[in-house]
Amino acid sequence: STMTDALCINTIRTLAADTVQKANSGHPGAPMGCAPIAHLLWSRLMSFNPRNPKWANRDRFVLSNGHACALQYVMLHLAGYNMSMDDLKSFRQLHSKTPGHPENYLTEGIECSTGPLAQGISNAVGMAIAESHLAALFNKPGFNVVDHNTWVICGDGCLMEGVASEACSLAGHLGLGKLTLFYDDNQITIDGSTGLHFTENVLARFEAYGWHTQRVVAGDAEDLTALSQAVQNAQQEKARPSIIAVKTTIGFGSSKQGTHHVHGAPLGADDVAKVKARFGFDPAQSFVVSDQVREVYGAVAQRGQQREAEWAEMFLRYKAEFPELASELQRRMEGRLPDNWRAALPQFPLDKPLATRQTSEVVLNALAGVIPDLMGGSADLNPSCLSYIKASGDYQKDTPAGRNIRFGVREHGMAAIMNGLALHGGVIPYGSTFLNFIGYAMGAVRMSALSHIRVFYIATHDSIGLGEDGPTHQPIEMMTQLRSLPNMLTFRPADGKETAGAYAVALENAHRPSTFALSRQSLPQLASTTIDGVAHGGYIVVDPPAGARPQLILVGTGSELHLCVNAAQKLQAEGVEVRVVSFVCWELFDEQPIEYRELVLPANIPALSVEAAAVTGWEKYVHASHGMRSYGASGPLAAVLGEFGFTVDGVVGKARQVLDFYRTRPIPDLIHRPF
Amino acid sequence: STMTDALCINTIRTLAADTVQKANSGHPGAPMGCAPIAHLLWSRLMSFNPRNPKWANRDRFVLSNGHACALQYVMLHLAGYNMSMDDLKSFRQLHSKTPGHPENYLTEGIECSTGPLAQGISNAVGMAIAESHLAALFNKPGFNVVDHNTWVICGDGCLMEGVASEACSLAGHLGLGKLTLFYDDNQITIDGSTGLHFTENVLARFEAYGWHTQRVVAGDAEDLTALSQAVQNAQQEKARPSIIAVKTTIGFGSSKQGTHHVHGAPLGADDVAKVKARFGFDPAQSFVVSDQVREVYGAVAQRGQQREAEWAEMFLRYKAEFPELASELQRRMEGRLPDNWRAALPQFPLDKPLATRQTSEVVLNALAGVIPDLMGGSADLNPSCLSYIKASGDYQKDTPAGRNIRFGVREHGMAAIMNGLALHGGVIPYGSTFLNFIGYAMGAVRMSALSHIRVFYIATHDSIGLGEDGPTHQPIEMMTQLRSLPNMLTFRPADGKETAGAYAVALENAHRPSTFALSRQSLPQLASTTIDGVAHGGYIVVDPPAGARPQLILVGTGSELHLCVNAAQKLQAEGVEVRVVSFVCWELFDEQPIEYRELVLPANIPALSVEAAAVTGWEKYVHASHGMRSYGASGPLAAVLGEFGFTVDGVVGKARQVLDFYRTRPIPDLIHRPF
Ligand SMILES: [Ca+2]
Ligand SMILES: [Ca+2]
Repeated sequence: STMTDALCINTIRTLAADTVQKANSGHPGAPMGCAPIAHLLWSRLMSFNPRNPKWANRDRFVLSNGHACALQYVMLHLAGYNMSMDDLKSFRQLHSKTPGHPENYLTEGIECSTGPLAQGISNAVGMAIAESHLAALFNKPGFNVVDHNTWVICGDGCLMEGVASEACSLAGHLGLGKLTLFYDDNQITIDGSTGLHFTENVLARFEAYGWHTQRVVAGDAEDLTALSQAVQNAQQEKARPSIIAVKTTIGFGSSKQGTHHVHGAPLGADDVAKVKARFGFDPAQSFVVSDQVREVYGAVAQRGQQREAEWAEMFLRYKAEFPELASELQRRMEGRLPDNWRAALPQFPLDKPLATRQTSEVVLNALAGVIPDLMGGSADLNPSCLSYIKASGDYQKDTPAGRNIRFGVREHGMAAIMNGLALHGGVIPYGSTFLNFIGYAMGAVRMSALSHIRVFYIATHDSIGLGEDGPTHQPIEMMTQLRSLPNMLTFRPADGKETAGAYAVALENAHRPSTFALSRQSLPQLASTTIDGVAHGGYIVVDPPAGARPQLILVGTGSELHLCVNAAQKLQAEGVEVRVVSFVCWELFDEQPIEYRELVLPANIPALSVEAAAVTGWEKYVHASHGMRSYGASGPLAAVLGEFGFTVDGVVGKARQVLDFYRTRPIPDLIHRPF
Repeated sequence: STMTDALCINTIRTLAADTVQKANSGHPGAPMGCAPIAHLLWSRLMSFNPRNPKWANRDRFVLSNGHACALQYVMLHLAGYNMSMDDLKSFRQLHSKTPGHPENYLTEGIECSTGPLAQGISNAVGMAIAESHLAALFNKPGFNVVDHNTWVICGDGCLMEGVASEACSLAGHLGLGKLTLFYDDNQITIDGSTGLHFTENVLARFEAYGWHTQRVVAGDAEDLTALSQAVQNAQQEKARPSIIAVKTTIGFGSSKQGTHHVHGAPLGADDVAKVKARFGFDPAQSFVVSDQVREVYGAVAQRGQQREAEWAEMFLRYKAEFPELASELQRRMEGRLPDNWRAALPQFPLDKPLATRQTSEVVLNALAGVIPDLMGGSADLNPSCLSYIKASGDYQKDTPAGRNIRFGVREHGMAAIMNGLALHGGVIPYGSTFLNFIGYAMGAVRMSALSHIRVFYIATHDSIGLGEDGPTHQPIEMMTQLRSLPNMLTFRPADGKETAGAYAVALENAHRPSTFALSRQSLPQLASTTIDGVAHGGYIVVDPPAGARPQLILVGTGSELHLCVNAAQKLQAEGVEVRVVSFVCWELFDEQPIEYRELVLPANIPALSVEAAAVTGWEKYVHASHGMRSYGASGPLAAVLGEFGFTVDGVVGKARQVLDFYRTRPIPDLIHRPF
């Protein structure tokens, strides 16, 4: 009844206000404004089982305006998840499961980390893609084993962000009919009214993207009829994603409702008391849930368990009829790799030079043959990044079984959608663009790393070696930027074997994203690189003959490793004993035991790094760096590499400088440090 | 006549094809498709003087699809700029003025570096804002001394990028009536047809943004009537920016026209010959411009000189009537700072702790009082970033004289618009957001640095010290990411004096962008910091008493500097002689002479850095780093700082570890390196 709904909605509002007030920090406004939507979603619309938050076929819910997470925690509490009243009271406290923005890796029932605006809605597009793709692969008549909705709440901020525009335009193109977005249209942002900066016609814009659009004016109402009807319409529209703009009042119930003052600060004890009085609650009591509300949500939890039980029963019958499909779906949703996938790693003939973007194409396609979970695409650079799975076709609205997603020129959207695909499960996503344009996607790349998920960035044209396109396209700082991101694995393989090794390590790291920085230009296949060496991050590729002690170590990555090998040969001919180390992944080297690290880079031998990228950070490992200290230049490959000294002679010259310098000076010990 | 136009247009097409063919690299398709638009723009629409490319009141032209720059170079050549036929023949060669993507700092007549898609259109929004703002400030009845149009050509790729969505939504809100965008609607991208990924209704979307929209079907036609009419309509619409979608055929004239094969590769000699034959040119000849075309463009150049002469004459009369305004406009357009601006730098009482976001607010407002060029705003974080110029109001369509731009939640758009403001001239732009969300804007932040322009990023909430908002909002890698960008100055001031010093250096660097990383939390004003010290990047703040030789150097930045000062005091009490260095800007320290650097960080004293950020890169300066090696955590300030050891005791503990470690080991010399 409406009276019960009112009680539930106002309980959500007061609980959210209490939660923020207790923390003395947080955002009460959006939770109070969105309470009716949340109540409708959790009490009537969504399929989930609080006892098994990872149920594969659950509906996915994304709070794109993650600052409103007090709402999400309150809903998890009411719905019976592992979220106690004490957890609500620990909101925004250290080591609580109720941090200031929701974190998927901390809290059961949180599908994705949100907070950076618009990541969530873009993740949701990825989740909806995964759902439709897996449904196309696994469902059989009478067995909709993959069949769930994806729901999002977002605010004005999310819709101003470009990444949302990218993801939502693509969602419209792809006709993701089971994606429903509630737009919390409260006309307030941190600065004040949306009239200050956001006067576009949002629904007309989404209409232009190909979405089904509706407006609900009575968004604050405790009578949910209008909202329910809109959702029903949205669900009936199967061919288009739906946006429902819901006019709400931020901080509904507060004496400051409808202003930006309720956005990001607690209401204050007085105002919280007034809210409670207004809703007929006891102002003296906090964190109160009446039996009547408990009853409603108790039934919700039961319905959820029932739903999963029904699905499990169907899945058993499915398994009987389609045993291979069933175990494959289970394997994929659990994130396990198929057996023996490593046998598919290709070999590369030593006499055939290839760009590492080409070796990547070979490795990706070989692995895609045995790991059907691999699904991805390019930000409109397929012919350059070579990341198309040739054995499959496009993922499009009429061909959802295809594994190749045409992301368009939407790097940030691509990355956020990749995160959503991974978070949904059942898919191991990758995306490709030029390394330099990872910068466009950095907001979402960070979320890949923070969220502990396995996504692959195939980042080609990885240095000034791309030549004519010039400084706007030549990454300088990007390797440093990626290496400085905690939990990201940044690979720069030198040839085919190392490319295979990088993919292998990336696949084995289920909770870390990886970036493969790949050359545009052709590179030799090196005799002494290895697939297994990559797993150590850095390893010896060339050592002086007959066990002689090296006088110098050349530390190279990617397209510069063969320069080091050839420079070593030249120096050796002059009587200088040289070691060459491939330093393909810093992060993995750092994780090796000290015994290994000092074996590769002994403390008392001068080391020179060679990498056509910013030198920042190399000082940790080497005594001098041959790298880039400016932006690049436009010109043919050889001319540009020559200009900046990335030739064998250039490396030899730098090596001699290092040898000369340390002839009379002590070698600084870089490998042993206080911590 | 249409015949003459046809000749001009086809000359542009063949010249562009020749240019790309000679380079054997580049993009012929868009130049050939956009030739009619370019001819119309340069021959009839735009005000410019090829003899003075920096004429303040010139129309601004932006080629947002910068890969089409063969077109732009051809137009500069025809229009009489300093761009010879030999320059065209040196397309994409090292050290030429015709690089693979246009670079504002290399080539006269290029307003901005484009290539990374959609930066250009977003820059153009900034240029149009600057024009309307300066017009509001300086024009007087009868004296429209600032009165020019901003023109853009962009492609499908630009319009898929989120940054364009952000900038164009804001442009609609701001009603930038003198901004006209030609959308090269050729339905082809690198991957193939736009049908693969870009099926939104672009004009309906722009209509939703509040733009005036039109479509021209006959975009390939050499009869320019339809295109001209559309432009006329756009010009008559004064209250809204205009987009004209022009249906063109990519590579028009080529046997592969209308396919993605003409996008990014030369046509081949045979096809170029066919193009010439089709247009009635001699297939055997290359780089040919007929006398008739020379005559048309000769008249264009003359008209341009005439226009500037007329403007100059008006400006003389303006100067007579409004001498102060005239000299102020000149000063601003030349990028000179007003005299004596440094006198406005504020002082901060030592007994008043303030967050550096607060000291920034004080400094910014003090400087804004004497430097009217300062104009900027926040990505909807004014109440948090404290970057509002209080003596002025909002820049809005009805109040264009206001200096505070409400960017909305659009970090990437903000940064790209800031670049456009700076490139226009007359304005010194700044933009604010949380340091962590600079990641959203990284694509444009890079362009600030590459373009050699003065823009300020006010980046607050600069560490885990922001507390409750947690890991999604706590920057870890951002300092490293910014420091690795060539030509960016990255400041992390410790208190009010250093904040003033940072702004001062930033202002004095007319060809570099600066970022100010600022604390959310309150910090003490330190006795021994100085404004002038900042200019050295790193300087001694505390030294042992009575000239004793330090046993340890603590190197701190920003909110950790006072921890170092207090830790030093504690260690001193234990008999350990400690120096404290403020390392406020790495880039400036690196530019100091070696004598200065070894004075501050002598080779034989162990140094420990203290910064609540990724440690990557600190190894260049110090022997150990107390920093962040993971993401942060949500919790109250003190709890979070305690958790990660950013307390006085935490620093003392680390310091003891360093002292212990080097008691028996040689101190690595980090300051003297081979190169
Ligand atoms: Ca729908
Ligand atoms: Ca107009």
